[in-house]
Amino acid sequence: MPKGFQDFYPDRFSHCYGCGKDNPHGHHLKSYWDGEETIARFTPGAEFSGGVPDNVYGGMIASLFDCHGTASAAAFAQRAQNRAMGDGDPPRFVTASLKVDFLRPTPIRVELVVKGKLESIEGRKVRVTMILSAQGIPCATAQMLAISLKE
Amino acid sequence: MPKGFQDFYPDRFSHCYGCGKDNPHGHHLKSYWDGEETIARFTPGAEFSGGVPDNVYGGMIASLFDCHGTASAAAFAQRAQNRAMGDGDPPRFVTASLKVDFLRPTPIRVELVVKGKLESIEGRKVRVTMILSAQGIPCATAQMLAISLKE
Repeated sequence: MPKGFQDFYPDRFSHCYGCGKDNPHGHHLKSYWDGEETIARFTPGAEFSGGVPDNVYGGMIASLFDCHGTASAAAFAQRAQNRAMGDGDPPRFVTASLKVDFLRPTPIRVELVVKGKLESIEGRKVRVTMILSAQGIPCATAQMLAISLKE
Repeated sequence: MPKGFQDFYPDRFSHCYGCGKDNPHGHHLKSYWDGEETIARFTPGAEFSGGVPDNVYGGMIASLFDCHGTASAAAFAQRAQNRAMGDGDPPRFVTASLKVDFLRPTPIRVELVVKGKLESIEGRKVRVTMILSAQGIPCATAQMLAISLKE
């Protein structure tokens, strides 16, 4: 699998359960460019069901947005400085706030596609909006405010 | 362990990875009354770290809020009708929207306490606010709009 944004995080920041390359137990979500936007794909196993066995639990959906959003913020910040993700250590963003709107039940054992769009960059603050879709149908949207850690 | 709110969900709604009694892989979060408010406790294992190994990943925090929030909504809705959680099948709430504000890094391998407070009930819509604390220090807050499934 090609390197995702998360694979360029410095080692000390690579332990995230959702997306860290150095977490052996985790989901290893990987985010990429998709034109001007960003994209990540993930197929949840049956164990990650919500209350009913056919749908994904809300925490998984929030996790995908959280990991894809902070990775996207890092990529957008690098791009704004005309840098690629592998061009020096990228900034490591953390989530200040995340709002998720659940539009409809999200099916399980189906590839979920999360797309991220840059809304604004102001100093260390990056705002990202996201859509999570299954088979082309939007199931949830999110708004994130991410802040880069000071070096 | 005493029965949590989630243990009273009808079997068909008890498969949630975060809190379902019938999900053998999940976290089995349990929510209880705490006076007029609600409470849940959870100690994340080291594997659920965020980017740095000492802190919890954002998805876990959102998961705890999501599961505790919908369970609290069910309990608040039952109480509004002068019913206990074991008094007939409680309504099963799903999340319409969840906003999480991350105040500071949340430590790992420490008991996290999530408290829920009822803001309003309007028909099938229940609004809940929550605070997640570690060792008495608030680490994150959340606002949820939950909606009960139609029977």
